[in-house]
Amino acid sequence: MQYTAPIRDIKFVMHELLKFEEHYKTIPAFAEVDKDTLDSFVEAGADFAQNELSPLNRTGDEEGCRFENGNVYTPTGFKEAYKQYCELGFTSLCGDVEYDGQGMPISLGSIINEIVGSANWSFSMYPGLSEGAIRTIEHHGNDEQKSTYLSKLITGEWTGTMCLTEAHAGSDLGIIRTKAEPNDDGSFAITGQKIFISAGEHDMADNIVHIVLARLPNAPQGTKGISLFIVPKFNINADGSIGERNAVTCGSIEHKMGIKASATAVLNFDKAKGFLIGTENKGLNCMFTFMNTARIGTAIQGLTASEVAFQGGLSYAKERLAMRALSGAKVPEQVADPIIVHPAVRNMILTTKAFAEGGRALVYYLSQFADVVAKGEDPAQVAYADQMLSLLTPIAKAFLTETGYESANHGVQVYGGHGFIREWGMEQNVRDTRIACLYEGTTEIQSLDLLGRKVLGSQGKMLANFTKVIHKLCEEHKDNDEMGQFVRPLARLNKDWSDLTARIGMQSVENPDAVGANAVDYMYFSGYVTLAYLWAKMALVAQQALKGDTTEAKFYNAKIKTAQFYFAKLLPRTLTYVKRIDSGLEPLMSMEVDEFVF
Amino acid sequence: MQYTAPIRDIKFVMHELLKFEEHYKTIPAFAEVDKDTLDSFVEAGADFAQNELSPLNRTGDEEGCRFENGNVYTPTGFKEAYKQYCELGFTSLCGDVEYDGQGMPISLGSIINEIVGSANWSFSMYPGLSEGAIRTIEHHGNDEQKSTYLSKLITGEWTGTMCLTEAHAGSDLGIIRTKAEPNDDGSFAITGQKIFISAGEHDMADNIVHIVLARLPNAPQGTKGISLFIVPKFNINADGSIGERNAVTCGSIEHKMGIKASATAVLNFDKAKGFLIGTENKGLNCMFTFMNTARIGTAIQGLTASEVAFQGGLSYAKERLAMRALSGAKVPEQVADPIIVHPAVRNMILTTKAFAEGGRALVYYLSQFADVVAKGEDPAQVAYADQMLSLLTPIAKAFLTETGYESANHGVQVYGGHGFIREWGMEQNVRDTRIACLYEGTTEIQSLDLLGRKVLGSQGKMLANFTKVIHKLCEEHKDNDEMGQFVRPLARLNKDWSDLTARIGMQSVENPDAVGANAVDYMYFSGYVTLAYLWAKMALVAQQALKGDTTEAKFYNAKIKTAQFYFAKLLPRTLTYVKRIDSGLEPLMSMEVDEFVF
Repeated sequence: MQYTAPIRDIKFVMHELLKFEEHYKTIPAFAEVDKDTLDSFVEAGADFAQNELSPLNRTGDEEGCRFENGNVYTPTGFKEAYKQYCELGFTSLCGDVEYDGQGMPISLGSIINEIVGSANWSFSMYPGLSEGAIRTIEHHGNDEQKSTYLSKLITGEWTGTMCLTEAHAGSDLGIIRTKAEPNDDGSFAITGQKIFISAGEHDMADNIVHIVLARLPNAPQGTKGISLFIVPKFNINADGSIGERNAVTCGSIEHKMGIKASATAVLNFDKAKGFLIGTENKGLNCMFTFMNTARIGTAIQGLTASEVAFQGGLSYAKERLAMRALSGAKVPEQVADPIIVHPAVRNMILTTKAFAEGGRALVYYLSQFADVVAKGEDPAQVAYADQMLSLLTPIAKAFLTETGYESANHGVQVYGGHGFIREWGMEQNVRDTRIACLYEGTTEIQSLDLLGRKVLGSQGKMLANFTKVIHKLCEEHKDNDEMGQFVRPLARLNKDWSDLTARIGMQSVENPDAVGANAVDYMYFSGYVTLAYLWAKMALVAQQALKGDTTEAKFYNAKIKTAQFYFAKLLPRTLTYVKRIDSGLEPLMSMEVDEFVF
Repeated sequence: MQYTAPIRDIKFVMHELLKFEEHYKTIPAFAEVDKDTLDSFVEAGADFAQNELSPLNRTGDEEGCRFENGNVYTPTGFKEAYKQYCELGFTSLCGDVEYDGQGMPISLGSIINEIVGSANWSFSMYPGLSEGAIRTIEHHGNDEQKSTYLSKLITGEWTGTMCLTEAHAGSDLGIIRTKAEPNDDGSFAITGQKIFISAGEHDMADNIVHIVLARLPNAPQGTKGISLFIVPKFNINADGSIGERNAVTCGSIEHKMGIKASATAVLNFDKAKGFLIGTENKGLNCMFTFMNTARIGTAIQGLTASEVAFQGGLSYAKERLAMRALSGAKVPEQVADPIIVHPAVRNMILTTKAFAEGGRALVYYLSQFADVVAKGEDPAQVAYADQMLSLLTPIAKAFLTETGYESANHGVQVYGGHGFIREWGMEQNVRDTRIACLYEGTTEIQSLDLLGRKVLGSQGKMLANFTKVIHKLCEEHKDNDEMGQFVRPLARLNKDWSDLTARIGMQSVENPDAVGANAVDYMYFSGYVTLAYLWAKMALVAQQALKGDTTEAKFYNAKIKTAQFYFAKLLPRTLTYVKRIDSGLEPLMSMEVDEFVF
C-alpha cells in the first residue's frame, strides 16, 4: 500500500483544534516555532515517508532481518534510507541544541513520528529507540556521558536501545537477574542476557548505545534494587572515537509475527563494560523517562495502524464492485456498486476513520503537555501538564493500540479474502500492529497504571483535572443546538466516569483485587470518553469553520458526520464496560486454579 | 504448542448435554450408533491428532507450500499424514455406505473435524474441501457421476475443491465470468480463472475433483445464470482409471497471512473438460449444499481457535511467574506468583474457555439438526431441523469465527511479548484464524443471511422456533434458585431478541438499508443469546450431576463458574449491540462518498 500523509487532517489538528502556535508562545523555548515552520517540517516528513519509506515497507516485511555470525543485516534499502533520514535532520529534530539537536518541541516530533511510522513502522523503530536513549541521557546522564553520547545519538550516527526484558521477566522487572559488578576504574562489568531488544543489533550505525537495567551486588530485592547503565557496543576512546568491541554480543534475532524489518535481538552481556546512569538502585525511576517516551511512541503506532487501515480500506471500498445497494443501484452503468455503498463496509471505514482522526487528536493533545513538561518555565503550568500527561499516557498507549489493532483488522475485512494475502498490505498492518498491545507495557499493565497508580493513586485528583476540562466544554455549549447532540451525552459520561471511579475505589478498599479486575474495562471506558471529548471539540471547530467563508465544506462536514458516527456507534461500547464493572469480582475470581483444566 | 484433545469436555457435550445416543435413536439410519462407538472414534481421532498432526502444525507453517512449474508441494510430513488419515478411515467417516463410506452421522464428523482441526487447521483443509465435494455429488450428481467420483473421494484417494471465487468476484458470485461451452459429447469446455482455491493443487492425492461455477452461453445475467460443473484434474477413462491431464493448471499459490500449509491456488481453466451437475443455471442452489457444509466447517475453525488459545494461555498462565497478587502473595516460596492469579489474565483465560466450550456446544447442537436433515425420515422432524439448521448456521459461522479470533488474540496477550514470536504457537493461531472471518462468506455476508434471508425472510418464524426452545428452558427453571441466576437474564434477552427483530423489521419497511446497517450487530446479539442458552443448559446439567454421586466435582463446578463468568462478563456486550441498532441508520449512511477522503 502506498501511504499518503493526511496533511489536511494533520493541519486541522495542529492549527485549528489545538492551536500549536499559541501553545508554543506559552513556552519560551518554543516561542519562535510558527505555523510556517511546522508546515514545512510536516511537508518534508511527508515527502520522505511517501517516497522513501513507504516503498520499503512491504519489501522489508518480506525480506526481514538476517542474522549471521553475530551480525544483523537490515533489509535492502534500510541502511540507505536511514542515512538520508539522518541527513534530513529527522533524528535531531527534538534533540538538545547544545548537542547538535534542533531543539524542536516533542509535539512536532510526534507528528513526524506519526508520518514516518505510518509509512514504515519497522523502520521507525530504529530512530524511535534512539529517542528514548537520548531522553534518558539528557535527563539522568552526567556531563561526561552527555558529551560522549548525546551528539552521536542526536545526529543519528549512533543508535540506542532499551534493555529491560529478560526471558523470565517482562512485565515484572523486579525479578531481573542481570548483574553489574564494580570495576576498579569506576565502570561496571555487566553480565546477563536480555531478550526482545529492538534495534539491539543492526548494520545501520557505527555504534549502538545500550541502556541496560541490572542489579548491583547486594542490591535490595525487587524494583528497588535495580540500576541503570550505559553499555556501548563499541567502547569509546578518550578522544571520543570508536574503540574496541565491548563484551556484548547478539545471540540471535526473534522470528516474529510482524515488524519483521525491525531487528529484535537476544543480547548476551559477558562482563561488558557499563557506566552507571543516575543513582544506584534508582534505575527504574530513570527508566520511566525512557518508558514514557516509548509509551507515547507506541500510542502513535496505534494511530498509524488506524490510519493505514483507513487509507487502505477506503481506497478499496471506492473501487471494488460487489452487489447492489439494498436501497437500489447507485452506479447502474457498472456491473455492481462499489462496496462503500454497503452499510457494513461504511461501518468499518468510519470506525477506522474515527479512531485514526480521534487518535491523532489525542496524541497531539498529550504531546502538548509533554512540551510543557520538557521546557515549561511556569511551575504551576508544568505541574498541571505533568499530571495531565501522566493520566493521558496510559490511556493513549492502551486505547490507541487496541483500537489500532481493531482498525487493522477492519482494514483486512474490507478486502474480503484479498485482505488475507500479502499483496495489499492489510494483513501486514495487522501483524505489525499486534506487538503494540504488548510492548512498552501490555494493555493490562497500562490499565493498572491508569487506574491504580494514576487515578486512585492521586485520590482522583488527576482524573478531576481532566473531567473539569470536559465539564467546561459541556457547560459552554449545552444550550447550543448544534453542539447539544455531543455535549449532552458527553456530560453524562463525564459524570459516569467520576461515579464509576468512586465505586471502584470503594470496592478496592474491601478487596485489592478490584483494581486488577476492573482496570482494563476502566481503561476502555476512559479511552472512549477521552476520544468523545476530542470528537466533540473537533465537531465544534468544524461547525465554526462552516459558519465562516470556507471552500472546504466537504472536509468540515465529514468531520461533523464522523463525530456523529463516533457518538452513535462507538460510544455505546461504554455501556458494556460499566455493566462488566458493576457485575463485581466474584465471577472472575471464584474459579480455583485447579479447576482450570482441559 | 502440543494440542490435547479435550475429551472430557467433548463427552460432556455429546453424552450429558446433548444425549447423542438418544438423538440417534430418532433417526433410523443412525439408530445403532451408541456411546461406545462414539467414544472409540473420538479417542482414535484424538490419538491421531495429538501424535501425528499436532507436531506438523508449526513445521507446516514455517515451511509452507512450495510452487514449482505448476506443481504444488505440501510441507514435509503432510503427504504421509494424509495417507494415514485415509487409512484410519477418517475421510470415509460420514460417506455413503454404497460408495465405501461408513455412513456415520455428521455430528460425529463435526467432532472429529474439531479434534483434527485444532491440532492442525491447514491439514484439515484438504479433507475438509473433499467433504464439500462429496456432499455436492451425493445430492446433485447423476448415477454415473456418483459411481465415477464418490468412492474415490470418500476413500480419500482423490480430493475435491470448491471453485467459486474469481479475482473480481467473491461475495458477489453473480458477476463471475468463467464460461462453459457445450462440447459435442455432452461435456462442456470450461474457460476462465478461479482464485483462492483451497487444496486446488497439491501432491497428496492422485486426482483432484474441482467443483466449478461457470456460465453457459446466453445464460441469464446474475446469480440465475450460473451452472455447476465437475472438472477433474485428470480425465477419467471409461474403466474409471486416470487418463490424460485435463486443461486445468495451477498458475501460482498465494502468499497468505496464515494457514500456510494449505495450498491456495490460482487455477486456470483453458477449455477444460467439465460435466454439468444438476440443472442448467441452477448451480448456485446446488452450491449451497457445498457451502452449508463449509460454513459448519468454518464455524468449527472458530471453535478450534478458542480451544487452542485456551489450552496455550492456561498452560502458560499456570507456569509463568510475574508480580504478586494484589490481594497478597499466593505462592510466597516462589520469586513471584503465577500470572493466573491476576484478574486481567483470568479474564482472558475465562473468555477463551467460555467461547471454546460454548462454541463446542453450539457446533454439536447444530450438527444434530444436520443429522436429521441428512437422514431423518419423519417429514415434520426434518422440516423443523432444516429451519433450525438454517438459522443457526450463519450464527455459528460468523459468531464463532469472530469470537475465535478474539480468543486467539487473548492467547497471544496472555504470553506478553512471547506471544508475538513463533515459539509458542499463539501468533500462528491468530494468523491461521484470521481467514475464518473471511472465507465461506464473510462475517458481513453471514449476518445478512441471518437477518435478511433467514429471520426476516421467514417473517420471524425461524427465530420463533428457537426462542420457543429458550422460553421453555426459562419457564421450567424460573422458580429454581440455582438456575434463576441464568434463566432470569436469559428470559429477558430472549424477549429482547424478538423485540429487536420487530423493530428492525419495521425500520426495514421504510428503508431497505436497515437490514444491511443492523445485520452485524444483530448477528452478535443473536450469538451471545444463543451461547447464553447453551451455557444455561450446561450449568443445569452440571448442577444435576453435582447432586448425584460424582467424583468429578471440580469439572462440574468449573462448568457452573464458567457459566457465571459468561453471564456476568460476556453477556453485557449485548447492551452495546442494542444501543447501536437503536441509534438508527443516519450516522452510518449520511456521509457522501466524496466526503470520504484522506
